[in-house]
Amino acid sequence: MQVAEKLSSLRALMAENDVDALIVSNTDPHNNEYVADRWRCRQWLSHMKGSNGTVVVTANWCGLWTDSRYYETAISALEGTGIELMRASDVDVPKIEEWMKKELSDGSTVAFNGADTSVTQAEAWLESLQPAGFKVRADLDLIESVWNDRPQPPCGKFFFVDESISGESVESKISRVREELKKRKVDAHLLGRTDESCWLFNFRGTDIEHNPTPYCYTLVTSDRVMLFVDGKKIGDDDRDRLIAAGVEICDYAEVEGALRALDASTRLLFVPNHTSYALKQAGDHCARVKDRAVVTDLKGVKNETEVANFKRILIEDGAAMVRFYCWMYETLRSGGEVTELSASRKLEACRAEIDGYRHVSFESIMGYGPDGSLNHYSVDEDSDKPVHLEGLFLIDSGGNFVLGTTDTTRVLPMGEPTELQKADYTSVLRAVIELITLEFPEGATGAQLDGICRHALWANGRNFKHGTGHGVGFGLEVHEGPQNISGVSTEKMQLGQITTIEPGCYRPGQWGIRIENMVHTVESCENEFGRFFKFENLTFCPINVDLVEPSLLSAEQISWLDNYNAEVVEKLSPLLDDSQQAWLRNECRPVGAVG
Amino acid sequence: MQVAEKLSSLRALMAENDVDALIVSNTDPHNNEYVADRWRCRQWLSHMKGSNGTVVVTANWCGLWTDSRYYETAISALEGTGIELMRASDVDVPKIEEWMKKELSDGSTVAFNGADTSVTQAEAWLESLQPAGFKVRADLDLIESVWNDRPQPPCGKFFFVDESISGESVESKISRVREELKKRKVDAHLLGRTDESCWLFNFRGTDIEHNPTPYCYTLVTSDRVMLFVDGKKIGDDDRDRLIAAGVEICDYAEVEGALRALDASTRLLFVPNHTSYALKQAGDHCARVKDRAVVTDLKGVKNETEVANFKRILIEDGAAMVRFYCWMYETLRSGGEVTELSASRKLEACRAEIDGYRHVSFESIMGYGPDGSLNHYSVDEDSDKPVHLEGLFLIDSGGNFVLGTTDTTRVLPMGEPTELQKADYTSVLRAVIELITLEFPEGATGAQLDGICRHALWANGRNFKHGTGHGVGFGLEVHEGPQNISGVSTEKMQLGQITTIEPGCYRPGQWGIRIENMVHTVESCENEFGRFFKFENLTFCPINVDLVEPSLLSAEQISWLDNYNAEVVEKLSPLLDDSQQAWLRNECRPVGAVG
Repeated sequence: MQVAEKLSSLRALMAENDVDALIVSNTDPHNNEYVADRWRCRQWLSHMKGSNGTVVVTANWCGLWTDSRYYETAISALEGTGIELMRASDVDVPKIEEWMKKELSDGSTVAFNGADTSVTQAEAWLESLQPAGFKVRADLDLIESVWNDRPQPPCGKFFFVDESISGESVESKISRVREELKKRKVDAHLLGRTDESCWLFNFRGTDIEHNPTPYCYTLVTSDRVMLFVDGKKIGDDDRDRLIAAGVEICDYAEVEGALRALDASTRLLFVPNHTSYALKQAGDHCARVKDRAVVTDLKGVKNETEVANFKRILIEDGAAMVRFYCWMYETLRSGGEVTELSASRKLEACRAEIDGYRHVSFESIMGYGPDGSLNHYSVDEDSDKPVHLEGLFLIDSGGNFVLGTTDTTRVLPMGEPTELQKADYTSVLRAVIELITLEFPEGATGAQLDGICRHALWANGRNFKHGTGHGVGFGLEVHEGPQNISGVSTEKMQLGQITTIEPGCYRPGQWGIRIENMVHTVESCENEFGRFFKFENLTFCPINVDLVEPSLLSAEQISWLDNYNAEVVEKLSPLLDDSQQAWLRNECRPVGAVG
Repeated sequence: MQVAEKLSSLRALMAENDVDALIVSNTDPHNNEYVADRWRCRQWLSHMKGSNGTVVVTANWCGLWTDSRYYETAISALEGTGIELMRASDVDVPKIEEWMKKELSDGSTVAFNGADTSVTQAEAWLESLQPAGFKVRADLDLIESVWNDRPQPPCGKFFFVDESISGESVESKISRVREELKKRKVDAHLLGRTDESCWLFNFRGTDIEHNPTPYCYTLVTSDRVMLFVDGKKIGDDDRDRLIAAGVEICDYAEVEGALRALDASTRLLFVPNHTSYALKQAGDHCARVKDRAVVTDLKGVKNETEVANFKRILIEDGAAMVRFYCWMYETLRSGGEVTELSASRKLEACRAEIDGYRHVSFESIMGYGPDGSLNHYSVDEDSDKPVHLEGLFLIDSGGNFVLGTTDTTRVLPMGEPTELQKADYTSVLRAVIELITLEFPEGATGAQLDGICRHALWANGRNFKHGTGHGVGFGLEVHEGPQNISGVSTEKMQLGQITTIEPGCYRPGQWGIRIENMVHTVESCENEFGRFFKFENLTFCPINVDLVEPSLLSAEQISWLDNYNAEVVEKLSPLLDDSQQAWLRNECRPVGAVG
């Protein structure tokens, strides 16, 4: 079906239901970052694939709001559809609510599907739109009626992670959660984000591409632990293991009834950003506790076993990337063909050889040349391009392994780099070194760290529009909280967290540069001003030196780079063959020796 | 009356009213930073004077929560009272709500006075305490019944600022506010923060010490502007002028009725942080618009006239400080006596000679020696100490002038500084220079800037516990929003705002160091990455060079310092006599020439 056809069916249905404006998102009931096909409503309607985007439909207009990562993607997807691109990262573009206040007439009815919208988002829309005189309906799923071949919810099998790998038993985790609930006077806690249940029960799922977490909810009270999930996903042995740990396994759909059945005196905690508005309404008779998430904090701080596993897997992951680099340069230099897509497949194949590999941790970003400037470019048959021995190649990729989740970005010179490319690359490298070598006091926020990292770019009149870093799950999602390095993150960095550092510099139509490592927050020292933390580097993958302009680095920065690359050689060589080792030694030669 | 006596009367009253825990603050109905004596309930009860502090009283315990600025002050005030100090800035000290959840039994009744508590604070307590099973009462003023000689509300006279000084007429301001309300679909806007009414009507008040804003509210609708104020404060001419601008003058107490009289369809905007919980309840039948403050944003961006006036007054203010410094050194060197209190009075007298001086903009911080390490030390007869020709003297002071509000901190060496003092001072100076010379993209947040400033201190294992900077009013309050430079400020810096930069370094029992200038956000450049902003320095007051360790500064930083001090000499000399000019030239000699 063409976009025009879909829009016209939808508009007929809107007219029937007296809806003047409909908000269509790609969100599922858990506000997952990656959602199963069933919940890709915005993508189905607009044909725009990016992970961020919201469509607003009125009787005579349709617009798609998305952030700067997806401007280019959206421009080509929306061509000819009549859907207007609303550039949400631009300073002068109104937010959806502001746009509605300006464009819709008083008393208009706005609708969204409350079953697939988080409490946070729903309440923001309600609080902004209702006082402005709009009627807001959250009880309609209009897309369901026009999307004829809409997929069913997935039913992927579970797999369990042994305690020797997760470092903590299910019983111990349940007891720590209960302790925390007791301290906060919470009677019942609904785990809405699916990775919270995975962490609690040491399991992983296979429902969603690139996402190791299955559709499920957990409700923890002082005397019950209920897991709501399609029972077909769990094998018999695993079911017995859960039951032995005191877990009741209930059908996914029963969660609503379980909330309704809670006594009205229950003090209920849920995480508004990962609970659907419809489900929240089922618990509205209880006392709502507005407090921080419990499991997010516990899960964010990795235990010693998890950290040791991360370290082990990141070395194997680094070696896989080197094997890929060698293959790519060899293929091209011997006259073979490499395209973004074939490179992506080869890189995945290199990772897949590692023990415990499950899947990519996100769709690889294979940004050759101008494609590197598209922040979240994802290659497919339509966008695929050949890679030549010229220009820059930005590769942002990672794997989901039983022993941990990885996320690394490197930029490779495919030919002789220009001065401006070297200046851009060196600015970004400075920004990485600023943050990776930083010592910061306990209590420092993600936003403070973000400023320090960007300073190295601002000082040269550069900037980038995405965040500087995000938490990473242990064999779970590649983006997890609570911490986050960005200009608006007031979260305090905590010991034991694992976070990415990934500043960038993008020139649309020319190239993109981003360098990304994963780091572990550890204690540095304590003095009369308090405790100080620092980062332990976890990622070992060569940082190319042909792109470095040494005159733009301080002696300390050059020394950091040379030491880093020396450590890369030391750690990865045992996993590589002779010719790969030789390539790596050259790639990692000291910058003092360059040029 | 002794603290014990007050507590015992209060506890009797709590028992009568079935209140298990009472929260007592120093907040007034507008959540003013400086409050009239009538609302200093916590101070009256605990005898602790600092601007931050909240007391919790139960039948058998009493505690005072305050931040690190006031630890030392609180320790001496609370001695012998039995009131426990709760060090709110420390990582392991529970917040009031957390403490209650841990210590009070289920079903306890907690009370606070909703008439003197902001909506923000009241809702935070309610949302945390009610779901935890506590009964919360906001309708009791128990302090009123036990505080026999409680002062009446003040009745200070208004004075008006001519349009030639404010740069904009009342009519124009009202029309800009209405435009903004229309854009946001707001029907009625209550101005709860008193400086918002001052800005709108170009007046100032004399109700509260150190605060040029009088007790008043304004309600703006599409066709009415109502100013609620004790009419005795306004002279006849000024009253006529307001009426001519279309303003209705109503009694202060009538605001509640005016809110109650609003039609239920009214879309009402108020600023929760500066509206009392009791007043919010009067408008509860309307649709509450949750949106940014309107006047705060308009007021924060200074117009050209205001900026020109700021520049003029800050030069006069700098000259006044130099006259004071000369007096102090001369007095001491000629064998005279100087104490913190006499110095404070002399400094005030020097400022008072300036045309348009109204009062100090806050209680001067005269921190000699160890007193400099108390972040908000205020000297009085009890704490006064003699100043000698040794150690460091931290002076943080400012004036409220018709032409602007000033706020400057300098540290003066009273004798030969030690190496550690110089290292501390130079670290703080580096932090100032980092921020004052920064170029940052449009959209940068206060927290990003905060990180960049602190980095200069973190790098040397130092830190400080207060914010890095705050907005400053034009002849209004010395602390105003929306911007704020701190680790948790997600406010974006805007063109035209005026902000302080004031990092510090404190060694309890030894000395304190802070250097503070005011800056104006201006445009720097625009390139393919967007618009960049920078700061224009506004403060001209010598930065002492005897305390500088040049080896800890880069060549660029030394050059910034030398240029700054040269500009200070150039700008202030015309306002000084010969001997003061000579002192200033020596004080401002280039660092290259030091030592």
